[in-house]
Amino acid sequence: MAKNIKTRKDDYAQWYLDVIKAAQLADNSPVRGCMVVRPEGYAIWEAIQRDLDRRFKETGHINAYFPLLIPQSFLAKEAQHVEGFAMECALVTHTRLQKNPNGSGIQVDPSSKLEEPYVIRPTSETIIGHMYSQWIQSYRDLPVLINQWANVMRWEMRPRLFLRTSEFLWQEGHTAHETADEAQEETMRMLDVYASFVQETLAIPVVKGKKSEAEKFPGAVDTYTIEAMMQDGKALQAGTSHYLGQNFAKAFDIKFLGRDQKQNHVYTTSWGVSTRLIGAMIMAHSDDEGLVLPPNVAPIVVAIVPIFKSDEERATVTGFINQMLTQLVGADEVAAGDKRKSGDDIKSYFFDKQTNQRIVVDLRDTRPGDKQYHWEQRGVPFRIEVGPRDVASNAFVLKRRLDRSKNVGNLSQVSADWLRAQLADVHRAMFDKARAFRDDNIRTAKSYDEMKQILQEKGGFVRAYFEPSMDVEKRVKDETKATVRCIPFDQPSQAGTDIVTGQATKTQVLFAQAY
Amino acid sequence: MAKNIKTRKDDYAQWYLDVIKAAQLADNSPVRGCMVVRPEGYAIWEAIQRDLDRRFKETGHINAYFPLLIPQSFLAKEAQHVEGFAMECALVTHTRLQKNPNGSGIQVDPSSKLEEPYVIRPTSETIIGHMYSQWIQSYRDLPVLINQWANVMRWEMRPRLFLRTSEFLWQEGHTAHETADEAQEETMRMLDVYASFVQETLAIPVVKGKKSEAEKFPGAVDTYTIEAMMQDGKALQAGTSHYLGQNFAKAFDIKFLGRDQKQNHVYTTSWGVSTRLIGAMIMAHSDDEGLVLPPNVAPIVVAIVPIFKSDEERATVTGFINQMLTQLVGADEVAAGDKRKSGDDIKSYFFDKQTNQRIVVDLRDTRPGDKQYHWEQRGVPFRIEVGPRDVASNAFVLKRRLDRSKNVGNLSQVSADWLRAQLADVHRAMFDKARAFRDDNIRTAKSYDEMKQILQEKGGFVRAYFEPSMDVEKRVKDETKATVRCIPFDQPSQAGTDIVTGQATKTQVLFAQAY
Repeated sequence: MAKNIKTRKDDYAQWYLDVIKAAQLADNSPVRGCMVVRPEGYAIWEAIQRDLDRRFKETGHINAYFPLLIPQSFLAKEAQHVEGFAMECALVTHTRLQKNPNGSGIQVDPSSKLEEPYVIRPTSETIIGHMYSQWIQSYRDLPVLINQWANVMRWEMRPRLFLRTSEFLWQEGHTAHETADEAQEETMRMLDVYASFVQETLAIPVVKGKKSEAEKFPGAVDTYTIEAMMQDGKALQAGTSHYLGQNFAKAFDIKFLGRDQKQNHVYTTSWGVSTRLIGAMIMAHSDDEGLVLPPNVAPIVVAIVPIFKSDEERATVTGFINQMLTQLVGADEVAAGDKRKSGDDIKSYFFDKQTNQRIVVDLRDTRPGDKQYHWEQRGVPFRIEVGPRDVASNAFVLKRRLDRSKNVGNLSQVSADWLRAQLADVHRAMFDKARAFRDDNIRTAKSYDEMKQILQEKGGFVRAYFEPSMDVEKRVKDETKATVRCIPFDQPSQAGTDIVTGQATKTQVLFAQAY
Repeated sequence: MAKNIKTRKDDYAQWYLDVIKAAQLADNSPVRGCMVVRPEGYAIWEAIQRDLDRRFKETGHINAYFPLLIPQSFLAKEAQHVEGFAMECALVTHTRLQKNPNGSGIQVDPSSKLEEPYVIRPTSETIIGHMYSQWIQSYRDLPVLINQWANVMRWEMRPRLFLRTSEFLWQEGHTAHETADEAQEETMRMLDVYASFVQETLAIPVVKGKKSEAEKFPGAVDTYTIEAMMQDGKALQAGTSHYLGQNFAKAFDIKFLGRDQKQNHVYTTSWGVSTRLIGAMIMAHSDDEGLVLPPNVAPIVVAIVPIFKSDEERATVTGFINQMLTQLVGADEVAAGDKRKSGDDIKSYFFDKQTNQRIVVDLRDTRPGDKQYHWEQRGVPFRIEVGPRDVASNAFVLKRRLDRSKNVGNLSQVSADWLRAQLADVHRAMFDKARAFRDDNIRTAKSYDEMKQILQEKGGFVRAYFEPSMDVEKRVKDETKATVRCIPFDQPSQAGTDIVTGQATKTQVLFAQAY
């Protein structure tokens, strides 16, 4: 058992932080609530970006970039929005430093005070709405289908790496349409893009549904969500897509000359996912030994560990490994990789230049056991071990991170396609495992007491007849810490009894405690 | 002549802004000095990122992300650095808004004042240095080769789209090494990466050299630069690579246990390029008709304009164009593109999914002449015009943006490879044209008077014997507005006479007015 990682059973919250630390995904910074995304963590974010960006472009979207700062007055223009977003935020009030006149160091120059403070964007509906009001004149300019990759900031009181940080990285799509139908269609299209991405790329099953009034985005008409289950049974909102109706169009006066020759307000949507997805991925798949990476976002897909005692053995084993590498990445890339700088004798070769996925060979002067441990904690899907005796029989040991299984392979079978097939198998197994866990932990409650009991004794998601409303939702949250995660699209055909109010209702919801 | 674009001769500064506006690359924002990078401009930045990122990874670098905010005290730790960077900047002083107690709206909550203000990063040597001091323990941890793609902010008094904006996008590489030699080698490696990129991708020739004391990065031991010439003869610094010696290592206590079993300070480098490169690209290549895009970063490589009067002609022409598209992008992509949403009947097909380069078909209900003009101003390398008579002879008209030449092509020759060859020709021609212009505008001055005369009458770069020093450089700048752009690597073998001081010197420099 890993000494530097608490078990999930002992302390789930600490286990999560230990996994991140052991895999060097992120670090705390000297700036309150802000994290440093370390290279191995950032490479996962790059894989997420690459994959999502492709999906956005294939559905006709295009990227742009809007200012980091938002005039304070903009946030006040949409009434619900300001309540939800403008309160805990980073405020820029001055624009100059000066030398401290009374001593050493520097200080804020009081004469540089801004007339109106700026807010570091917590989300960009307002400033983008302002620009759209200038760009959109006619129905011919619609739809506008823009996405932005950016950093945003919300001053967090209880920060937690990836899950809740004051600054985080995300994408925010902002689209404008001629009709409500088109905007609603777009909202659903992007929810589907998110669901496909999270399932196909992060191997996490999700429930699609609509948010209740209490949980929707401040300023939205409707918010749709994909909800994932973590290994402690809690829910994590993995992505949201908002139908904003004409709320922001009216607040920012985004009008167009319609086919009817009249000035109409556009209908807008927004949708986003963030570095939070990395937290979801860790919590959904990792184990007590550390990180387990879904193959599609693993920066390193295979770590090769040579075993040798003498120089002669080293030569034999590395010769064999070079042959294996040549079969996996080609001779040109082996030559290029050999020339790259390396801090600690870990050689790195591109398995796929488009996805930046690499294969490493660990030539460090440490014990093979330590190396195994090193790559295991980093969640690398496969390790390959090669010793002198293996070379003699043209064999190697293939260790699979997911289930820690060991198999003997033969050099003759090794190829890029062989590895791709192995990785695809792991992806499927991870998804199936996570789905089985999730399905085992969705329970139906026929009464409020039953729900309380399930939440207390077993956790997970509780499915129940319930008619969402601000007041009753608040009461349930106070009493159980659970919230309506969503009103799943998949609804029963028959009405039932609301577990809290006892009224008849056709609506079933999923309740859970959430991250 | 374009009515919405001033000529370069009439008003070069306005021409630049007109070109940006006509091509919809960027827009001013309601935030002082901050721009909005519009989709067509951002697509160029994405092409730049993709290409550079590949070069960084191929030279062994890896990306990470550090906080946007830097504690004020960090900036004061390196004496030269604070003078150069900490003065005009955005300062975060508070973290909460509240409802205005005396009326409507919101205001800064005075009780949320931070003990120590944060500065929005103007550059990240300080915060990255702080993290490196925690991550680096031993020579085994070296080199650290990290790059960051990020937004940065420097409060600009005279902003100008792309060239000088308060917020801009960039990459900043920060590396740490065991020895001075290794760090110097890295500094030069990255300068070479920049030079190759700017020449091979943006088709802009550059002069490589070292910065003088007056022009180097605050906190660097040596700064190296690539300098490009704009069409008005002014210089633009297109990228810099800094050898920082142990300056930041000492300021942030970045130490490691060396092979000698002693604690040593690391040697660091930093290097960066920004969205300024888009300004350079516009100024180096565009003409009085608008933008001219280097093919390697053109988001749209071909715009196809159908010409028809009747529905029957439309059917004939679009049938022909579909055949052409199939030859260029394949039947699957034609089918996928036909399904994508489009605001204004401009159909868009991926020519290359890896680079996101597209081919568009302009089916809008406007005159063919207007469409030609539209794509010309947007700098699309090629336009293809197809009318009913062309279809009859299996032909089309190919218009090349660079020299506005027209040629008749035959459908049978059209293929992805054919188009790639056409694009490669354009790239070569653009580079050759820019290099010829640059070489014609580098002049040698034997005296200070001669230099003044050249700068006044002809502009461009002036090459002269000159021994850089803070005082004399300041005097030259005051008198001529020209600065030492660099001490080119290519130096004469013989000594000469300093044009300002009259002393003997072996050093030649390039003087120019600069952006």
